[in-house]
Amino acid sequence: MKRTHQCGTLSAANIGETVTLNGWVQTRRDLGGVLFIDLRDRSGQVQIVFNPAYSGEALKIADRVRSEYVLAVSGKVVKRDAETINPNMPTGDIEVHITEIEVLNAAKTPPFFIEDGVEVDESLRLKYRYLDLRRPEMQKTLWLRSKAAKVFRDFLDGEGFIEVETPILTKSSPEGARDYLVPSRVHAGEFFALPQSPQLYKQLLMVSGVERYYQIARCFRDEDLRADRQPEFTQVDIETSFLSRDELLEMMEKLVVRLFKETKGIDIETPFQRLTYADAIGKYGSDKPDLRFGLELVDVSDIVATSGVKVFSSVIEKGGEVKVLNAKGCGTWSRKDIDDLGPYAARYGAKGLAWVQVKEGTFRGPIVKFLSEQEIEILKERTGAEEGDLLLFSADNKKVVADVLGALRLKIGRDLGLIDDNVYKFAWVVDFPLLGWDEEQKRYVAEHHPFTRPREEDLELFDTDPGKILAQAYDLVLNGYEVGGGSMRIYKRDVQEKMFNAIGLSPEEAKDKFGYLMDAFEYGTPPHGGIAFGFDRLVMLLAGRSNLRETIAFPKTASATDLLMNAPSEVDTPQLEQLHIKLATKPPVAAK
Amino acid sequence: MKRTHQCGTLSAANIGETVTLNGWVQTRRDLGGVLFIDLRDRSGQVQIVFNPAYSGEALKIADRVRSEYVLAVSGKVVKRDAETINPNMPTGDIEVHITEIEVLNAAKTPPFFIEDGVEVDESLRLKYRYLDLRRPEMQKTLWLRSKAAKVFRDFLDGEGFIEVETPILTKSSPEGARDYLVPSRVHAGEFFALPQSPQLYKQLLMVSGVERYYQIARCFRDEDLRADRQPEFTQVDIETSFLSRDELLEMMEKLVVRLFKETKGIDIETPFQRLTYADAIGKYGSDKPDLRFGLELVDVSDIVATSGVKVFSSVIEKGGEVKVLNAKGCGTWSRKDIDDLGPYAARYGAKGLAWVQVKEGTFRGPIVKFLSEQEIEILKERTGAEEGDLLLFSADNKKVVADVLGALRLKIGRDLGLIDDNVYKFAWVVDFPLLGWDEEQKRYVAEHHPFTRPREEDLELFDTDPGKILAQAYDLVLNGYEVGGGSMRIYKRDVQEKMFNAIGLSPEEAKDKFGYLMDAFEYGTPPHGGIAFGFDRLVMLLAGRSNLRETIAFPKTASATDLLMNAPSEVDTPQLEQLHIKLATKPPVAAK
Repeated sequence: MKRTHQCGTLSAANIGETVTLNGWVQTRRDLGGVLFIDLRDRSGQVQIVFNPAYSGEALKIADRVRSEYVLAVSGKVVKRDAETINPNMPTGDIEVHITEIEVLNAAKTPPFFIEDGVEVDESLRLKYRYLDLRRPEMQKTLWLRSKAAKVFRDFLDGEGFIEVETPILTKSSPEGARDYLVPSRVHAGEFFALPQSPQLYKQLLMVSGVERYYQIARCFRDEDLRADRQPEFTQVDIETSFLSRDELLEMMEKLVVRLFKETKGIDIETPFQRLTYADAIGKYGSDKPDLRFGLELVDVSDIVATSGVKVFSSVIEKGGEVKVLNAKGCGTWSRKDIDDLGPYAARYGAKGLAWVQVKEGTFRGPIVKFLSEQEIEILKERTGAEEGDLLLFSADNKKVVADVLGALRLKIGRDLGLIDDNVYKFAWVVDFPLLGWDEEQKRYVAEHHPFTRPREEDLELFDTDPGKILAQAYDLVLNGYEVGGGSMRIYKRDVQEKMFNAIGLSPEEAKDKFGYLMDAFEYGTPPHGGIAFGFDRLVMLLAGRSNLRETIAFPKTASATDLLMNAPSEVDTPQLEQLHIKLATKPPVAAK
Repeated sequence: MKRTHQCGTLSAANIGETVTLNGWVQTRRDLGGVLFIDLRDRSGQVQIVFNPAYSGEALKIADRVRSEYVLAVSGKVVKRDAETINPNMPTGDIEVHITEIEVLNAAKTPPFFIEDGVEVDESLRLKYRYLDLRRPEMQKTLWLRSKAAKVFRDFLDGEGFIEVETPILTKSSPEGARDYLVPSRVHAGEFFALPQSPQLYKQLLMVSGVERYYQIARCFRDEDLRADRQPEFTQVDIETSFLSRDELLEMMEKLVVRLFKETKGIDIETPFQRLTYADAIGKYGSDKPDLRFGLELVDVSDIVATSGVKVFSSVIEKGGEVKVLNAKGCGTWSRKDIDDLGPYAARYGAKGLAWVQVKEGTFRGPIVKFLSEQEIEILKERTGAEEGDLLLFSADNKKVVADVLGALRLKIGRDLGLIDDNVYKFAWVVDFPLLGWDEEQKRYVAEHHPFTRPREEDLELFDTDPGKILAQAYDLVLNGYEVGGGSMRIYKRDVQEKMFNAIGLSPEEAKDKFGYLMDAFEYGTPPHGGIAFGFDRLVMLLAGRSNLRETIAFPKTASATDLLMNAPSEVDTPQLEQLHIKLATKPPVAAK
């Protein structure tokens, strides 16, 4: 019996045809001598009917099938009686009268229903991933992911990009602590590392004259996992030579437009908004702001610097700042509602949360009595406070203020229903600081990575005030998520040396770790820059899911285990001996 | 200066236009005050000219540029004087008169010339891979590889395949000895393994109802390397449900036809020849025969079994065989020419090499006197021996005879010029044995892998004579290379259990290693099968190269090192401590 059609594609157009289908038993209803089965394949479902009138033999065989049995069946497509038409099923106005059946495989009762929205512990879903993936919503996500990859490739192929595969077995990076290591059998005591990104290889491809490179690349990072992190993840890795930053960003906007059009049918407007890092932090308390709603933060430091509110004036004296989030229309909240924000703000570092309600034309709240009439007037004007508003104050160093008010802004935006799930709001965040000060190590560290090019006009700051240098870096932000990031790269040896020096790498260390790159810069390296898109996250947003694991066929758990295959696992001692390593500790007793 | 054109794309059609180019200085010729530079980018080269008549300023700057400097230049496209037209250069009838130049980066003299066919030690090329890849033949190979991947994807997308990424951090396989291991930081004493192929994941995807899966997948094998092996390699991994073997093979033939058409413009004939494994070994002494020429082997065991040639009769008595390769037209070779074949044959296990020349109508050679008139007559007829032929005899067990005569057939085919490099001769080799006897371990081992489905009609042989079972496996062979291989898979638990039992895996071991797979078989697994193409090797053959390293952007050497980045390398002790491992030996002093 050779398959002629897919279940979900049958329609009234096939009426009268004899078809052969393959698929799984979704449901089975025995109406006393007549058997109805919804047969499912990856295209959808169709009702097939066994009746002694069509074939007693087939009915007899069908009688013993149960859910998830795999069948091959042949029969005639027939219009359903008017009263049995199922308008909720795409194939609901037809059914197939079966004359021949073969049971290709049997099935035990699955541990959960093969249907959408099933309530089941995620660890059980992951252990039986091969059943979980049968559910339509998971199939749809797999399709979407495959389609999204295709759109990326089609666009980049069209723009003259070459897909190049870079090594997975590579060298441990300077931030080696997050590297997965692979012991070498051939070279005792030496290790490969799995790449955190193909960064250096793609830059070397630009030195190689490839001009336009891409790769949908697997990357690895051994860090403690959060809901939106996986030990191995996929990025669409892109690098170009000779393009200016703006030419590259425009090209990437076209790519994103096509991605959303072809996968979701959604029109995305261009050009994308551009925000400096300073503005993003200043207005939204985040370098990946959700721009689907307003509620911008307002700096009121100058107004309250000399006010009677001690916590404000003392913070400002210490170089901190005071900012306000105007929670529009929340002036009617109860004292308890407002107090409930305290613990939430505390998670982001807030030591307290001052507030003011605008009621009956006046400011109300504990701090009001410490504010002068004039201060209140200017605050009203600056924050746009109107009747029924709630002003939330954060007073602390810049980072804490941004974290606290940024988080509150998101929470209140969600609580007030200001966020439209059907809107996709992109923005480029640009002009990031090149370096950040690491208080613990008492040195500068690269904010992106040490290959990011500083702005031309900031180069001389390396000698005077490195912390002030802005980078030619850019992040692509969508609805509060960073979905891509990149930079123009350093391509001259002297600039790269200054950068390494700024982050405390001695010339010897620099040579040891990146000698080949610095050498390469001396043999005719073109100006170049690129970007990487977080593919898992983009697919997650396209699919409307909130967890990366839903977008990956065989993901790891939050403790980096594969519950299906039970990896990682112990290995034989001889295998370790071959690799010239020993266990430093006894293996754990069990329990994973 | 924004790039307007690519160097190699300029032609007479651009005459009169002002263009801006980016690229590298290929050559520089100073003709006393007028400077000619061939400027190269990835599209090709064009001659640019600096002359005080166009711009004295530009000439002054250009005067200091050297080979491999990176330039941006603007100027007017001009028809060359008739006598300076270069017919060997695609852009040879024009040149660009430069009015503006910017030196984007300088370059030291490279360690070798950036041109095709350069004579340089491969280790130097690999150390400076970023320069090596600038050479046109390497650029062309990178393009070809990217294009080939696109053809695979386009075809498979068109046939409804879904691209699914499977994990790189996975579980150590039963043939664990060749696995690269990755210590887990989170789970002390446990290890991930890098996949030798996505075999089990792709089968689980079939259980998941994906029906058609593909992935251009990175695979890893830690074995001693030969010229045509790399520790990490790429395969086009394909799996389907519900298709018969023949339906799958036909689809794959269409894929290969499209690949050769779109990358090389070559028409490949279908259907591909099909050869059983037994025939391939019997006629060509190889399971990956080069079918571009004849010289088939002929079994003469029955003729010489009772002959006076002791080495023949005694071999046959011991269950061996005697076969002949008729080296057409080599009957005129000198005794020395023939003797020179001896050491070559010995490499493949030959203990000696008997031969007969046909000269002046009769057999000549040392063994002729031990053959009867009748034996000679039958031999002549069986081998088609004619005037001027050379018959080469191999007498040994089947494997040695196949290895020796298979190798001699290839050598003589090449020496006689019987092999046309422009011919691409595909064949499917089918009906492989399922199991092979491992003399050392005194047990059967899977010839492909233990998930290969036996032929339906051979299932009962598990109980009686497992060595006789033929597998539903197939290899795709091209010009003497295996370029793909696959099988229909076992999809029923009882058959899988029989298979594990046949290869000496106890039920406990089977459950420990493949419990999840056997479980999966009980929840409605469809009949499925697939194939994997060796992508590196296919690209090698498409590119007309003879070494896999030429097809990989950043390959490893034969001792599995990356000479560019110097990997593998030592890592810090704290890093190892985090991973709960220690070195078993002191690191080597140095020397790689």
